[in-house]
Amino acid sequence: MKLLLIHSDYIEYEARDETPVAEDEPALEGRLEEALTAFIAVEEGDEEDVDGVVEGAVEEIVDVADELGVKGVMVYPYAHLSQDLASPETAVSALKRIAGALREGHGYEVQRAPFGWYKSFELSCKGHPMSELSRVVEPREVTADEEDEEDEEETEPS
Amino acid sequence: MKLLLIHSDYIEYEARDETPVAEDEPALEGRLEEALTAFIAVEEGDEEDVDGVVEGAVEEIVDVADELGVKGVMVYPYAHLSQDLASPETAVSALKRIAGALREGHGYEVQRAPFGWYKSFELSCKGHPMSELSRVVEPREVTADEEDEEDEEETEPS
Ligand SMILES: [Mg+2]
Repeated sequence: MKLLLIHSDYIEYEARDETPVAEDEPALEGRLEEALTAFIAVEEGDEEDVDGVVEGAVEEIVDVADELGVKGVMVYPYAHLSQDLASPETAVSALKRIAGALREGHGYEVQRAPFGWYKSFELSCKGHPMSELSRVVEPREVTADEEDEEDEEETEPS
Repeated sequence: MKLLLIHSDYIEYEARDETPVAEDEPALEGRLEEALTAFIAVEEGDEEDVDGVVEGAVEEIVDVADELGVKGVMVYPYAHLSQDLASPETAVSALKRIAGALREGHGYEVQRAPFGWYKSFELSCKGHPMSELSRVVEPREVTADEEDEEDEEETEPS
């Protein structure tokens, strides 16, 4: 799973057109102020351990959101972060679980942009050194120690 | 080389803080309206054939810009699109060459956000099916037919 986390003055989106894999009952528009935007690509390899990557992604997002002091998180599907995508069913399930855990388990104000829709969006990235971070969350290996479950990327200036 | 091309109502940026690899004499701020934003990661493998990937990237950007009918292109370095980056020297050189070819060779209004700076940015993505496209441009193999030089990604809804 690939994450791109943007500390945003605001993020807003509006669903425009369905694709063949559009999820049902989407929130057709949303907006958060002073939020963390979490662009997420669920990858083929994540299907081996959806529980693990969901848990790992939530930990990464919580770590950054707490460090930044934001109360809101926009979960935004972003296929363009990966060349090896999970099935739409797995992706939607993982994204819903990440949003649910952030909302119910950690108390953030969470919005989730719908999967499989063409969407307009507008955002403002704050530009300080912690305002753009990428993370890679790997499935846990069956035999691996829990300590190896995540592969963190360093902050890279763009 | 990874490209993420966004058909933007507007894109603007402001350079905030230098990193150790900050380029000299940057344009510290910029803004384009009705433009194509080309987020670009120059990759380690591109160092084998900088001429080829620069040419391939320019072709991809021109194809999309012409299809969309935009006159402006924002060349924006974006390290978060790849886990295997070229050296800063190669990246800056490639980005300058892409911007130069688009401006002088193809007549676009081009702005180039500086490499190696933390930057705030704000953009609006239009949201139609052609408004978010990713492309991978591969170095040419020494023995390969020219037809194989590029590996195009299909449009993926996010
Ligand atoms: Mg609006």
